[in-house]
Amino acid sequence: MAKEKKAPKPKAQTPKGFRDYFGTEVTERAEMLAQIAGVYHRYGFDALESSAVETVEALGKFLPDVDRPNEGVFAWQEDEDGDKGDWLALRYDLTAPLARVYAQHRNDLPLPYRRYAMGPVWRNEKPGPGRFRQFYQCDADTVGSGSVAADAEICAMLADTLEVVGIPRGDYIVRVNNRKVLNGVLEAMAVTDEAEAAAVMRTIDKFDKVGEAGVRELLGKGRLDASGAYIDGVGLSDAQAEPVIAFLTSKGETAAQTIENLKAAVGDSAIGTEGVAELEQIADLLAAGGYGPDRIVIDPSVVRGLGYYTGPVFEAELTFEILDEKGRKRQFGSVAGGGRYDDLVKRFTGQPVPATGVSIGVDRLLAALREKGRIGSKTQGPVVVTVMDRDRMGDYQAMVAELRSAGIRAEVYLGNPKNFGNQLKYADKRNSPVAVIEGGDEKANGVVQIKDLILGAKIAESASLEEWQDRPNQFEVPRDQLVSKVREILESYS
Amino acid sequence: MAKEKKAPKPKAQTPKGFRDYFGTEVTERAEMLAQIAGVYHRYGFDALESSAVETVEALGKFLPDVDRPNEGVFAWQEDEDGDKGDWLALRYDLTAPLARVYAQHRNDLPLPYRRYAMGPVWRNEKPGPGRFRQFYQCDADTVGSGSVAADAEICAMLADTLEVVGIPRGDYIVRVNNRKVLNGVLEAMAVTDEAEAAAVMRTIDKFDKVGEAGVRELLGKGRLDASGAYIDGVGLSDAQAEPVIAFLTSKGETAAQTIENLKAAVGDSAIGTEGVAELEQIADLLAAGGYGPDRIVIDPSVVRGLGYYTGPVFEAELTFEILDEKGRKRQFGSVAGGGRYDDLVKRFTGQPVPATGVSIGVDRLLAALREKGRIGSKTQGPVVVTVMDRDRMGDYQAMVAELRSAGIRAEVYLGNPKNFGNQLKYADKRNSPVAVIEGGDEKANGVVQIKDLILGAKIAESASLEEWQDRPNQFEVPRDQLVSKVREILESYS
Repeated sequence: MAKEKKAPKPKAQTPKGFRDYFGTEVTERAEMLAQIAGVYHRYGFDALESSAVETVEALGKFLPDVDRPNEGVFAWQEDEDGDKGDWLALRYDLTAPLARVYAQHRNDLPLPYRRYAMGPVWRNEKPGPGRFRQFYQCDADTVGSGSVAADAEICAMLADTLEVVGIPRGDYIVRVNNRKVLNGVLEAMAVTDEAEAAAVMRTIDKFDKVGEAGVRELLGKGRLDASGAYIDGVGLSDAQAEPVIAFLTSKGETAAQTIENLKAAVGDSAIGTEGVAELEQIADLLAAGGYGPDRIVIDPSVVRGLGYYTGPVFEAELTFEILDEKGRKRQFGSVAGGGRYDDLVKRFTGQPVPATGVSIGVDRLLAALREKGRIGSKTQGPVVVTVMDRDRMGDYQAMVAELRSAGIRAEVYLGNPKNFGNQLKYADKRNSPVAVIEGGDEKANGVVQIKDLILGAKIAESASLEEWQDRPNQFEVPRDQLVSKVREILESYS
Repeated sequence: MAKEKKAPKPKAQTPKGFRDYFGTEVTERAEMLAQIAGVYHRYGFDALESSAVETVEALGKFLPDVDRPNEGVFAWQEDEDGDKGDWLALRYDLTAPLARVYAQHRNDLPLPYRRYAMGPVWRNEKPGPGRFRQFYQCDADTVGSGSVAADAEICAMLADTLEVVGIPRGDYIVRVNNRKVLNGVLEAMAVTDEAEAAAVMRTIDKFDKVGEAGVRELLGKGRLDASGAYIDGVGLSDAQAEPVIAFLTSKGETAAQTIENLKAAVGDSAIGTEGVAELEQIADLLAAGGYGPDRIVIDPSVVRGLGYYTGPVFEAELTFEILDEKGRKRQFGSVAGGGRYDDLVKRFTGQPVPATGVSIGVDRLLAALREKGRIGSKTQGPVVVTVMDRDRMGDYQAMVAELRSAGIRAEVYLGNPKNFGNQLKYADKRNSPVAVIEGGDEKANGVVQIKDLILGAKIAESASLEEWQDRPNQFEVPRDQLVSKVREILESYS
């Protein structure tokens, strides 16, 4: 007999660079987002959820991530009854949609408009290990205020947020810098050529990696890098390079000292002086709000994002050490960043609108909390009511209904009940604290068996430990004490 | 001087069929989703968040919505360094991704696998008024259990969920039907031809609209519809049509009566008898769990979804009346639906895997709660600290920091403070309950002015009402009583 030809089976796989999240991965993130939303709300920020899909036209090229300015989006063209329509794309961040939303609804929104947004964003980039094409962002922005009080508020809110989600004071620091100061430094260096300024920007972006000496070489004649390749320098004189080195290394013991150093670095540049004054005001406002340098510092060595933002720039770092993949200690590093970007909606309306904001890397923050053991402990599964007699499913349903009514997470075993061992294996896989058993004899006697699975596991692990041996891990209770006994066991482990 | 040519400004608009959600629209939905997740969790369901993007191959054509089986997805082709790759698409529901996830991870997942999922889905369909191309779904499914106890559990959970989100008992009903009973009815009618069976299915789908007499006509010779057009009938004899009419109208006073009627309708059909027995078991299990016919009923007139599901089918309806767009009273209608679909992962693995589940229409449920006035009352905005002296921003920041530390939502005015009237207009637009004012005189005297804006609005509304007149809506308090006085006002309105 000829076999019928079947269509090939589809592959059961996420697309490359995408993944699924299970159980506590989902609920821990949801809880963190709710905690963050709570802080943002208390600061007067309102929720906004824009659509995941935007026109490519509206998204434009407003990419905040200077490290990856050319990364693509997932885009497709509308098909309107056969006619090709607009190009649409998945949002790649929450800032470009904010610009569109503000331009579209500006007549109905308060001014200034404080908004927060949280949700997935998508990047059409080459996936790599630990690098996904869909990930969460969690942003807060103030649109329509040019006041540095708005920037200071974002910094204070960021510090509060980190503490609320479980990063204690001392384990994080919020660093503040200002693009205007750098502009002043460029003036003081007499760098006016745009290409030359861009080269200086690229060089200071390497400050983190190559340090002061490396930056000096790269601003001058060039530098032999670790691989032996020669990197051409910008070609500035030593004297010309001096202000930018002074800028990058200007952090003093106190904010006042840092400010003094910065004043020296910008010389008589008007924009630089304005930038330094802004940093001074931010430091004063934060001090007035009780945010001292143990939480937020002026730190001109923060260079990430300086190329993108137009005024103050912020970065939150976790300062505790973790072991990297090679077993070396290193600081956990950045979990949030932001700053002022004053041309947010100009491309839509022609009007300049000042804005400042911050984006928290929710997944990195979750990773940090897991690293510190503050979340991610094995979560307790449901109480499992086993099925001894499949004709009495109603009895078992009544038990779980009682347990659930008492607020206890519970389920009846819904697989094939024939093999009782499989039911206990299921309870184990579910990480259940308790199994309930009611066979024909128990039913006739008005009792149920309660199996303490946590205790059972402990006894199995350490059979010699006397402390567990005199405690039975299975016992009989009257049926009407089911709920109270189960609760007692759960409470003994909580 | 020649003007420089500028690029045209992009339009600040969502794509057609998409929208933005602001403030309480976002937070009320988030709160409802958290409430629903709480019930699902208590029932032993685990969270799952799959990626928004799937391969078109994995999505297949597993569309659960029989009303719109041919609706498209938003899809695009991967570009891998210039080579065309897989076709990807946004998920159109949460069931197709569940099938893919279960097939992919089945060796690591418990069996049965109870999971819930909530999030946006996307449909590439013609947008219409109130019809969006991105909307939320909130699903719970049990994969790998063929037991009707799994179906009964879903029904009980659905009833609990509706009550938890704020629909009181009596305002909703969960109706249960069974596809197998219909199959038995078709057998009893001696309808074996597939095309004829499909024609009968299409006809019973119209039962809601045309009623018993209409269905009789459509099963027989045909029917003149309201517009005067003649609709051809299926061409069955009156005798042949009898069983399906008996099926659709078999709901009795009690579940037992309904079951008797159904037994008569299916005659000696084996599949029909099995279906009736399943409904009977579901009714018994629900009764054992305490879910009476005031919450969940066997109702063979539920036909929505019968074409798609393979066993029990459920639908939750809100039974209170609302006024439709023409001012006529009508029941609010369906807010959730589901059923058993036993070929969930077969297309991936070749193995049949039974599954049953429910999907809640979150946006419709929110609309229902708004309709009943249970949510959506104007939400209180933040306390606004006004700026009388822009050089003392630090003083105002200190005030909001104190208020926030006390858990009070508060913000300092961040717009241009020059015009004090604009600050009060802003507070009004923000729906602020209280404004705080500290000018130079107040500062010198160690006091602040507190303006009760809710009382102010009441006085403005009803100036003649004596009850408000002897209560001042602005008063002075010592600076160190700021927090306690503001709290007192907020509590008087809560």
